[in-house]
Amino acid sequence: MAKAQRKKASKKDLIVQKAASMFREKGFPATSMRDLAESVGIEAASLYNHIQSKSEILQQIIFRISDDCNKHLAGLDNSGLSSLQKIESITRFHIQMMLHRIEEYHVMINEWIHLESQFLTDFIIQRRSYVQRLEGFVGEGIAAKEIKPVLPYVAVLTILSAVRGLEFWHRSQKKYTPEELEENMITYLIGGLKV
Amino acid sequence: MAKAQRKKASKKDLIVQKAASMFREKGFPATSMRDLAESVGIEAASLYNHIQSKSEILQQIIFRISDDCNKHLAGLDNSGLSSLQKIESITRFHIQMMLHRIEEYHVMINEWIHLESQFLTDFIIQRRSYVQRLEGFVGEGIAAKEIKPVLPYVAVLTILSAVRGLEFWHRSQKKYTPEELEENMITYLIGGLKV
Repeated sequence: MAKAQRKKASKKDLIVQKAASMFREKGFPATSMRDLAESVGIEAASLYNHIQSKSEILQQIIFRISDDCNKHLAGLDNSGLSSLQKIESITRFHIQMMLHRIEEYHVMINEWIHLESQFLTDFIIQRRSYVQRLEGFVGEGIAAKEIKPVLPYVAVLTILSAVRGLEFWHRSQKKYTPEELEENMITYLIGGLKV
Repeated sequence: MAKAQRKKASKKDLIVQKAASMFREKGFPATSMRDLAESVGIEAASLYNHIQSKSEILQQIIFRISDDCNKHLAGLDNSGLSSLQKIESITRFHIQMMLHRIEEYHVMINEWIHLESQFLTDFIIQRRSYVQRLEGFVGEGIAAKEIKPVLPYVAVLTILSAVRGLEFWHRSQKKYTPEELEENMITYLIGGLKV
């Protein structure tokens, strides 16, 4: 990439990152392009050299992180891991996103409803299929007597909701390290599924 | 109570109930007294015969349900239950609130930030003390080798966050009954803590 192109790409990254942070704090509807331009430190009109609309930024944030989730899931296909190990791997991945990529992850799980038309439909379909895969792992683990008999729907809801709860850690005095949170949550959530 | 007083009390209950439902759907700041009057079916001016302000309604909703939480907790004091049984009792109580009193519970856990001055302070202090009691039960259960060694902070965060996740069930096609959700979540969350 030529230097000018690289600079433009990194400015765009900065815009997307700042937007994720503002969408998390204020919500998508309440964030204006003017506020965003100000936080990036450019003129509002210049924003449009980098992105077409606020909606486009939301799409980029959400599909970048949901693609990462899907890639992680696909990577488990020929991993040779047991069902419980797959659930552990996914749970760790979500915990790490919640701990280290909180802005984007928060926007994905809370602001997706503001996606437009086809993007909204795509997201809902992808999410449904993702959750079904996870529930499938739980079902397989139960059939293999590796996982306790528990409704896969409830197991997946419990895991994903518990991970969301790490938002409170971010807003707390952070007495524990990310590693402590991850290990303890895995002990509870994965240990708790084991037969 | 005289008939006129009873009628007034039940109108007030209706206002509070409708308000909880609207605060849940639109959030406290976006709900106007005019909308509320309309949904109750009275003139906006008449609302003030029953309540002083929107803030007063919020206080009533939140402290009514948080008082119930505190009463439940106090009821465990001389119950003779083990630490794990106490955690189970509290987890069931929260699940049932989330399943059967979703409007008020949702308002308590999501809209408390809009409480005013002393009410906000009181709520934060009460909540901190409540969570500390729960963490205390986990710690006691670990000491008694009844509960797996897991950070009490993480155990309580996991339980309360998982329960919050039942919001998704409310917004889903509800393939499972409240009883199935409760029993399966208890199997996972309480079974998962047991040594």
